[in-house]
Amino acid sequence: MPLSEFSLIDRFFAHRARAHAGTATSPAATLGIGDDCALLAPRPGELLAVSTDMLVEGRHFLPDTDPHALGHKALAVNLSDLAAMGAKPRAFTLALALETPRETWLTAFADGMFELAERFGCELVGGDTTRGPLNLCLTVFGDVPVGAALRRDGAQAGDDIWVSGTLGDARAGLALLRDEWPGAPHGKEGSAQVDDAAFLHRALERPEPRVALGLALRGLAHAALDISDGLAGDLMHILERSRVSAIVDVDAVPRSSALQKLPRDTQLRCALAGGDDYELCFTAPPDARRAIAAAGERARVAVTRIGTITALRDAAGAPSIAWHDAAGAPLSLTLHGFDHFNAD
Amino acid sequence: MPLSEFSLIDRFFAHRARAHAGTATSPAATLGIGDDCALLAPRPGELLAVSTDMLVEGRHFLPDTDPHALGHKALAVNLSDLAAMGAKPRAFTLALALETPRETWLTAFADGMFELAERFGCELVGGDTTRGPLNLCLTVFGDVPVGAALRRDGAQAGDDIWVSGTLGDARAGLALLRDEWPGAPHGKEGSAQVDDAAFLHRALERPEPRVALGLALRGLAHAALDISDGLAGDLMHILERSRVSAIVDVDAVPRSSALQKLPRDTQLRCALAGGDDYELCFTAPPDARRAIAAAGERARVAVTRIGTITALRDAAGAPSIAWHDAAGAPLSLTLHGFDHFNAD
Repeated sequence: MPLSEFSLIDRFFAHRARAHAGTATSPAATLGIGDDCALLAPRPGELLAVSTDMLVEGRHFLPDTDPHALGHKALAVNLSDLAAMGAKPRAFTLALALETPRETWLTAFADGMFELAERFGCELVGGDTTRGPLNLCLTVFGDVPVGAALRRDGAQAGDDIWVSGTLGDARAGLALLRDEWPGAPHGKEGSAQVDDAAFLHRALERPEPRVALGLALRGLAHAALDISDGLAGDLMHILERSRVSAIVDVDAVPRSSALQKLPRDTQLRCALAGGDDYELCFTAPPDARRAIAAAGERARVAVTRIGTITALRDAAGAPSIAWHDAAGAPLSLTLHGFDHFNAD
Repeated sequence: MPLSEFSLIDRFFAHRARAHAGTATSPAATLGIGDDCALLAPRPGELLAVSTDMLVEGRHFLPDTDPHALGHKALAVNLSDLAAMGAKPRAFTLALALETPRETWLTAFADGMFELAERFGCELVGGDTTRGPLNLCLTVFGDVPVGAALRRDGAQAGDDIWVSGTLGDARAGLALLRDEWPGAPHGKEGSAQVDDAAFLHRALERPEPRVALGLALRGLAHAALDISDGLAGDLMHILERSRVSAIVDVDAVPRSSALQKLPRDTQLRCALAGGDDYELCFTAPPDARRAIAAAGERARVAVTRIGTITALRDAAGAPSIAWHDAAGAPLSLTLHGFDHFNAD
């Protein structure tokens, strides 16, 4: 039997949102689901950080993606934007279009979403459901003290460039799912190859938003963003907004042991231009190195220095990234046109 | 040439958002488009009202809808939620999926959206664009003083029930576009029939959010919402949230002269169960009648009393609407199953 919009909201979303609100010591909203608007109370001395992301089937996820993983990822990529701003998650709205609401699918989707939401104390406060080609649009809200936000426009010449975690795994996971690399080893069950494939697949489907790291970087990082479209493109956003350039040592870019089993060119393409990483890229002055290492330890995620911010050659010049290897030789690798999810 | 995401945001949206911010005396956001998040500053003594709506091609608008009208409507239906809450529009985000970005389409869409946004001082602060089946997801933000929001749960027995404007026009406009009523008169150009059709078509495509009325009803209305799914269904939301029932005189429900030329049953179906009206339905005590009439005059929209809120028969009872005509006879009309946009 088809589910109407209202029973769908009640059965799969509103109930769990209310249940969660009931147990929270500090509710996200003065008024949540069930009225024309949710009402969020301001917090003295804090700004409200807002971000919205739309995920489309076939574009951001494959049609047969596990709905539990999809619920996780839809919220994770939005929480990643809050993390990149140094904002503490508070609430979110969900707009959902789907063709044929199925109970098993919706249950798993809601489970994946709420498990992550509850882990970060982020409450569903409103939404919209409709029929249509599968589309998930979330808007997230977080709190950040006035003046503490990690913006893109604060990088300074001399800053170190850092990234969290390892890069390129999600892109490699996508390639394995799409069978893009026919020569890639397919091992027996329980073998190292199968473990590696599962690791890369998980990186694609269950990214971990670096919320704790974002909070720990307040007051330390000069600039930050999350890597969703690949390091090369995203670092360029910091450079353009900050009017600086960068030098990056590609051999310093952290890669997982699973990724390191692939050919070097593939590793670098995935790590430098692959999408869907959701790690943080940030810049900070060299005298913050010890504090940043400590912040990474507190947040339980590796943080790695990969390069340096440099001044533009002249004030009217265009920002650029100079890639080199560990020996100092310029990188010879075409990154342009390496397609991935999120590529438009 | 296909437009990439970044040039698309810059060319059609970010530029106009910044231009608008530059002229605003009170900018909506501390930080707008171009970072991971927008940053909204709290306003002392005010809550932030948040609402999100998703519009899907074929479900909420016809595939050949004029893009200027679509830009208008996508924002209008969201502003209508703020109006229904008594909130003053401040900002919005836009997430947009479209298959083939075309410059003429995007220019017209942005024009329609920004013309309305600028009229209400509502600033674009963030968004997302991607390829996919046409889908528009907006999230709007408005300000409302603590305790002043027009909620759904405040209706009291003895309250008058009011609606703004005229109801049913958008549903009749949809029927004409779909040619649902083959017997409906099609007049010659310049004739009254053509004028009526244009009026009904305009009601469907260019709803006017009742923002000024919503603001004027602060402190007067006990409960309010906007009519998006039809009076019958939407009034029931107030009844359920307020634990009351209602009596409605169907002959008092305001209908335009264009609608009144249709058969009486059709008029009533459109006015009572048609979707896409975006008028306000609200309740208020009888001693507020003069103040409400004055509020309607200030807001330049008709306000009409259509019925009365009554107590539930017993505390455990289900809310219900008793429909009668001007002579007091119960209405004999099946409203259930009268489909329209937004029907799921």
